[in-house]
Amino acid sequence: MKRTKGPTCQYELIAARDALEVIQGKWRIPIVISLTYGTKRFGEIQRDIGDISPKMLSKELKALEDYKIITRTLYDSMPVTVEYSLTPLGWSMEALMKELRTWGKHFRGEIMGK
Amino acid sequence: MKRTKGPTCQYELIAARDALEVIQGKWRIPIVISLTYGTKRFGEIQRDIGDISPKMLSKELKALEDYKIITRTLYDSMPVTVEYSLTPLGWSMEALMKELRTWGKHFRGEIMGK
Repeated sequence: MKRTKGPTCQYELIAARDALEVIQGKWRIPIVISLTYGTKRFGEIQRDIGDISPKMLSKELKALEDYKIITRTLYDSMPVTVEYSLTPLGWSMEALMKELRTWGKHFRGEIMGK
Repeated sequence: MKRTKGPTCQYELIAARDALEVIQGKWRIPIVISLTYGTKRFGEIQRDIGDISPKMLSKELKALEDYKIITRTLYDSMPVTVEYSLTPLGWSMEALMKELRTWGKHFRGEIMGK
Protein backbone atom coordinates (compact mmCIF):
# COMPACT_ATOMS: atom_id res chain seq x y z
CA MET A 1 0.00 0.00 0.00
CA LYS A 2 1.80 3.06 -1.32
CA ARG A 3 1.18 6.29 0.53
CA THR A 4 2.64 9.74 0.16
CA LYS A 5 2.72 12.48 2.74
CA GLY A 6 2.52 16.23 2.43
CA PRO A 7 2.26 18.42 -0.66
CA THR A 8 3.60 15.86 -3.16
CA CYS A 9 0.83 16.34 -5.67
CA GLN A 10 -0.12 19.98 -5.03
CA TYR A 11 1.45 21.34 -8.23
CA GLU A 12 -0.25 18.69 -10.33
CA LEU A 13 -3.59 19.53 -8.71
CA ILE A 14 -3.22 23.22 -9.53
CA ALA A 15 -2.49 22.56 -13.22
CA ALA A 16 -5.50 20.25 -13.52
CA ARG A 17 -7.73 22.80 -11.76
CA ASP A 18 -6.67 25.53 -14.20
CA ALA A 19 -7.80 23.28 -17.03
CA LEU A 20 -11.04 22.39 -15.25
CA GLU A 21 -11.85 26.04 -14.67
CA VAL A 22 -11.67 26.69 -18.41
CA ILE A 23 -13.73 23.66 -19.45
CA GLN A 24 -16.23 23.79 -16.60
CA GLY A 25 -19.94 23.33 -17.19
CA LYS A 26 -21.65 21.17 -19.74
CA TRP A 27 -21.30 23.45 -22.77
CA ARG A 28 -17.74 24.61 -23.35
CA ILE A 29 -16.25 21.29 -24.40
CA PRO A 30 -19.12 20.59 -26.81
CA ILE A 31 -18.62 24.07 -28.32
CA VAL A 32 -14.88 23.44 -28.77
CA ILE A 33 -15.53 19.98 -30.24
CA SER A 34 -18.08 21.49 -32.64
CA LEU A 35 -15.45 24.01 -33.84
CA THR A 36 -12.83 21.29 -34.41
CA TYR A 37 -15.07 20.36 -37.35
CA GLY A 38 -14.49 23.78 -38.90
CA THR A 39 -15.35 27.48 -38.70
CA LYS A 40 -19.03 27.88 -37.88
CA ARG A 41 -21.77 30.43 -37.48
CA PHE A 42 -23.77 30.79 -34.27
CA GLY A 43 -26.74 28.79 -35.57
CA GLU A 44 -24.50 25.98 -36.78
CA ILE A 45 -22.90 25.57 -33.36
CA GLN A 46 -26.33 25.64 -31.74
CA ARG A 47 -27.55 22.92 -34.11
CA ASP A 48 -24.52 20.73 -33.33
CA ILE A 49 -25.09 20.95 -29.60
CA GLY A 50 -28.84 20.61 -29.85
CA ASP A 51 -30.19 21.57 -26.47
CA ILE A 52 -28.41 24.85 -25.63
CA SER A 53 -30.38 28.11 -25.42
CA PRO A 54 -29.19 31.09 -27.52
CA LYS A 55 -28.57 33.07 -24.33
CA MET A 56 -26.37 30.35 -22.82
CA LEU A 57 -24.51 29.84 -26.11
CA SER A 58 -23.74 33.59 -26.30
CA LYS A 59 -22.48 33.56 -22.73
CA GLU A 60 -20.24 30.54 -23.25
CA LEU A 61 -18.88 31.78 -26.59
CA LYS A 62 -17.94 35.04 -24.85
CA ALA A 63 -16.21 33.12 -22.02
CA LEU A 64 -14.21 31.04 -24.52
CA GLU A 65 -13.28 34.22 -26.40
CA ASP A 66 -12.06 35.78 -23.13
CA TYR A 67 -9.92 32.69 -22.50
CA LYS A 68 -8.54 33.06 -26.07
CA ILE A 69 -9.80 29.59 -26.99
CA ILE A 70 -11.92 30.87 -29.89
CA THR A 71 -12.06 33.95 -32.13
CA ARG A 72 -15.12 35.77 -33.34
CA THR A 73 -14.89 37.26 -36.83
CA LEU A 74 -17.37 39.79 -38.15
CA TYR A 75 -17.86 39.99 -41.93
CA ASP A 76 -19.23 43.25 -43.31
CA SER A 77 -21.68 41.52 -45.64
CA MET A 78 -25.42 41.90 -46.16
CA PRO A 79 -26.63 40.67 -43.77
CA VAL A 80 -23.66 40.90 -41.41
CA THR A 81 -22.11 37.46 -40.78
CA VAL A 82 -20.33 36.37 -37.60
CA GLU A 83 -18.13 33.31 -37.60
CA TYR A 84 -16.39 31.46 -34.80
CA SER A 85 -13.22 29.42 -35.03
CA LEU A 86 -10.58 27.91 -32.77
CA THR A 87 -7.38 29.84 -31.96
CA PRO A 88 -4.03 27.98 -31.73
CA LEU A 89 -4.74 27.72 -27.98
CA GLY A 90 -8.14 26.20 -28.80
CA TRP A 91 -6.53 23.70 -31.18
CA SER A 92 -4.06 22.81 -28.42
CA MET A 93 -7.02 21.24 -26.58
CA GLU A 94 -7.34 18.50 -29.20
CA ALA A 95 -5.49 15.82 -27.19
CA LEU A 96 -7.58 16.68 -24.13
CA MET A 97 -10.82 16.51 -26.17
CA LYS A 98 -9.73 13.16 -27.55
CA GLU A 99 -9.10 11.75 -24.08
CA LEU A 100 -12.49 13.03 -22.87
CA ARG A 101 -14.21 11.23 -25.75
CA THR A 102 -12.12 8.07 -25.33
CA TRP A 103 -12.70 7.86 -21.61
CA GLY A 104 -16.38 8.80 -21.97
CA LYS A 105 -16.87 5.82 -24.31
CA HIS A 106 -14.96 3.52 -21.95
CA PHE A 107 -17.02 4.73 -18.97
CA ARG A 108 -20.28 4.24 -20.84
CA GLY A 109 -19.19 0.70 -21.75
CA GLU A 110 -18.23 -0.14 -18.17
CA ILE A 111 -21.06 1.48 -16.26
CA MET A 112 -24.00 1.98 -18.51
CA GLY A 113 -23.46 -1.29 -20.38
CA LYS A 114 -24.03 0.38 -23.75
CA MET B 1 -12.70 27.23 -44.58
CA LYS B 2 -13.87 23.72 -43.75
CA ARG B 3 -17.47 23.40 -42.67
CA THR B 4 -19.62 20.40 -41.88
CA LYS B 5 -23.38 20.20 -41.91
CA GLY B 6 -25.79 18.24 -39.79
CA PRO B 7 -25.15 15.79 -36.97
CA THR B 8 -21.57 14.92 -37.99
CA CYS B 9 -20.16 15.30 -34.52
CA GLN B 10 -23.15 14.35 -32.35
CA TYR B 11 -21.76 10.98 -31.25
CA GLU B 12 -18.43 12.52 -30.26
CA LEU B 13 -20.26 15.19 -28.26
CA ILE B 14 -22.26 12.60 -26.34
CA ALA B 15 -19.13 10.63 -25.32
CA ALA B 16 -17.35 13.79 -24.14
CA ARG B 17 -20.44 14.86 -22.20
CA ASP B 18 -20.58 11.51 -20.41
CA ALA B 19 -17.01 12.08 -19.27
CA LEU B 20 -17.75 15.69 -18.28
CA GLU B 21 -20.72 14.61 -16.20
CA VAL B 22 -18.48 12.31 -14.16
CA ILE B 23 -15.67 14.84 -13.64
CA GLN B 24 -17.89 17.90 -13.19
CA GLY B 25 -17.22 20.45 -10.46
CA LYS B 26 -13.94 21.54 -9.02
CA TRP B 27 -13.34 18.60 -6.65
CA ARG B 28 -13.65 15.23 -8.35
CA ILE B 29 -10.55 15.42 -10.52
CA PRO B 30 -8.38 16.62 -7.61
CA ILE B 31 -9.71 13.70 -5.51
CA VAL B 32 -8.87 11.21 -8.26
CA ILE B 33 -5.42 12.77 -8.77
CA SER B 34 -4.81 12.59 -5.03
CA LEU B 35 -5.63 8.86 -5.08
CA THR B 36 -3.28 8.17 -8.00
CA TYR B 37 -0.57 8.80 -5.40
CA GLY B 38 -1.81 5.83 -3.36
CA THR B 39 -4.54 4.59 -1.03
CA LYS B 40 -5.50 7.36 1.40
CA ARG B 41 -7.62 8.11 4.41
CA PHE B 42 -10.23 10.89 4.42
CA GLY B 43 -7.96 13.37 6.21
CA GLU B 44 -5.09 12.72 3.83
CA ILE B 45 -7.24 13.46 0.79
CA GLN B 46 -8.53 16.60 2.47
CA ARG B 47 -4.96 17.76 3.18
CA ASP B 48 -3.93 17.17 -0.45
CA ILE B 49 -6.78 19.26 -1.79
CA GLY B 50 -6.46 21.95 0.86
CA ASP B 51 -9.60 24.01 0.61
CA ILE B 52 -12.43 21.46 0.53
CA SER B 53 -14.88 21.21 3.44
CA PRO B 54 -15.41 17.78 5.10
CA LYS B 55 -19.07 17.86 4.06
CA MET B 56 -18.22 18.49 0.39
CA LEU B 57 -15.45 15.87 0.44
CA SER B 58 -17.90 13.26 1.81
CA LYS B 59 -20.42 14.14 -0.87
CA GLU B 60 -17.90 13.91 -3.70
CA LEU B 61 -16.33 10.68 -2.41
CA LYS B 62 -19.82 9.18 -2.35
CA ALA B 63 -20.47 10.34 -5.94
CA LEU B 64 -17.18 8.83 -7.13
CA GLU B 65 -18.01 5.58 -5.32
CA ASP B 66 -21.43 5.50 -7.06
CA TYR B 67 -19.68 5.96 -10.42
CA LYS B 68 -17.36 3.04 -9.46
CA ILE B 69 -14.31 5.29 -9.78
CA ILE B 70 -13.16 4.69 -6.20
CA THR B 71 -13.70 2.09 -3.47
CA ARG B 72 -14.16 2.68 0.23
CA THR B 73 -12.70 0.03 2.53
CA LEU B 74 -13.53 -0.19 6.21
CA TYR B 75 -10.96 -1.79 8.53
CA ASP B 76 -12.24 -3.22 11.80
CA SER B 77 -9.40 -1.72 13.83
CA MET B 78 -9.35 0.44 16.96
CA PRO B 79 -10.24 3.11 16.05
CA VAL B 80 -12.06 2.04 12.88
CA THR B 81 -10.12 3.05 9.75
CA VAL B 82 -11.61 3.94 6.38
CA GLU B 83 -9.45 4.02 3.28
CA TYR B 84 -10.15 5.12 -0.26
CA SER B 85 -8.49 3.87 -3.41
CA LEU B 86 -9.02 3.91 -7.17
CA THR B 87 -10.85 1.07 -8.92
CA PRO B 88 -9.66 -0.19 -12.34
CA LEU B 89 -12.17 2.27 -13.83
CA GLY B 90 -10.59 5.03 -11.73
CA TRP B 91 -7.12 4.08 -12.92
CA SER B 92 -8.42 4.15 -16.49
CA MET B 93 -8.73 7.94 -16.06
CA GLU B 94 -4.94 8.32 -15.88
CA ALA B 95 -4.47 9.40 -19.50
CA LEU B 96 -7.30 11.91 -19.11
CA MET B 97 -5.79 13.27 -15.85
CA LYS B 98 -2.43 13.59 -17.58
CA GLU B 99 -3.94 15.59 -20.44
CA LEU B 100 -5.77 17.87 -18.00
CA ARG B 101 -2.48 18.63 -16.22
CA THR B 102 -0.55 19.01 -19.47
CA TRP B 103 -3.07 21.35 -21.01
CA GLY B 104 -3.54 23.24 -17.73
CA LYS B 105 0.18 24.02 -17.66
CA HIS B 106 0.14 25.03 -21.33
CA PHE B 107 -2.88 27.28 -20.76
CA ARG B 108 -1.28 28.88 -17.72
CA GLY B 109 1.87 29.55 -19.77
CA GLU B 110 -0.07 31.07 -22.67
CA ILE B 111 -2.65 33.14 -20.81
CA MET B 112 -1.48 33.84 -17.32
CA GLY B 113 2.17 34.22 -18.38
CA LYS B 114 3.36 32.20 -15.38
